[in-house]
Amino acid sequence: MPRPSVREQLVDAAAECFHERGFNGIGVQEITRAAGVPKGSFYNHFPSKEALAVEIMRRYAVTRRLDMLEDRTLAPAPRLRAHFGYLADDLERFQFARGCLFGNFGAELSAQSADVRSQVESGLDRWTAQVTSALEEARSAGTLKSTLEPETLAGFLVNAWEGAALRAKVTRSREPLDDFLTLFDSLVA
Amino acid sequence: MPRPSVREQLVDAAAECFHERGFNGIGVQEITRAAGVPKGSFYNHFPSKEALAVEIMRRYAVTRRLDMLEDRTLAPAPRLRAHFGYLADDLERFQFARGCLFGNFGAELSAQSADVRSQVESGLDRWTAQVTSALEEARSAGTLKSTLEPETLAGFLVNAWEGAALRAKVTRSREPLDDFLTLFDSLVA
Repeated sequence: MPRPSVREQLVDAAAECFHERGFNGIGVQEITRAAGVPKGSFYNHFPSKEALAVEIMRRYAVTRRLDMLEDRTLAPAPRLRAHFGYLADDLERFQFARGCLFGNFGAELSAQSADVRSQVESGLDRWTAQVTSALEEARSAGTLKSTLEPETLAGFLVNAWEGAALRAKVTRSREPLDDFLTLFDSLVA
Repeated sequence: MPRPSVREQLVDAAAECFHERGFNGIGVQEITRAAGVPKGSFYNHFPSKEALAVEIMRRYAVTRRLDMLEDRTLAPAPRLRAHFGYLADDLERFQFARGCLFGNFGAELSAQSADVRSQVESGLDRWTAQVTSALEEARSAGTLKSTLEPETLAGFLVNAWEGAALRAKVTRSREPLDDFLTLFDSLVA
């Protein structure tokens, strides 16, 4: 049995590498080097680089804190605002250079890997569903500014967030995220 | 002197390859094979794969039809709507699988290539400036629904478009673009 820690070292190192250089920008050998584990150990833990990418996306999804969208101690509009504010601060920790892993992999790998594409799709679908629920709550409470369908608005907001994260990555600035939050306030809060 | 047609063949083939497989997903040798030109001819025409990518982005920018945003035969709001409608139809031609080259390269290469990052940034900045001008025209004519600053709204719309194009690429469907257009109508038209 391989030691569990080698697997964890691979996941941690690859998460950094993929965020910074994309999937095709880095090879298995560079990942093992960055992880400080023997080159030959990779395939004891993952059948392919693609399988490692899927595992990293599963873990990344947890850090998106979708649980914040179910926090009933806050009214739905400020709850949604706090969630997007958290995501903005998270991008700022890396000077916006990393962007969102969903967006990065979706842009780079949708044509190349059915497994990754499907993982991105279901991750964004889950997120959209949670945003929809919170917007429906706001609509029921009479506090939603926009008159559009919550589902349409939720899909739009999630996609607009991905676009803002991408522009922030390109410009290395917070401005696109702040523009998003300004529009969010005009539509929701 | 190399024949100009070899350069054109390289540009055309690489534009297809980069759109479908990203920058790092394809090598110079595969590009020359796809172009049907001798392997050794590449560096007679481009100092690097990166230089070829920059040339492709310049040409791609022209196909974005920013000139539509200056067509004074249409009022500014329907003019903007026609522009985004054109971009949606253009993505549909490839079953949404390609996404926007600006977004693709921005997501994949912002950390890797200063030249590509700068080309994406200036391309999106030019586009945002043109959208801002059209929104300012609409504001002056009293036909802009949103009360937000045209510049903020323009940045947001351009980024939201990029996010919608990315989600359309992931889901292989037009829905994200239609959600964008619905929101566009509620904010602008």
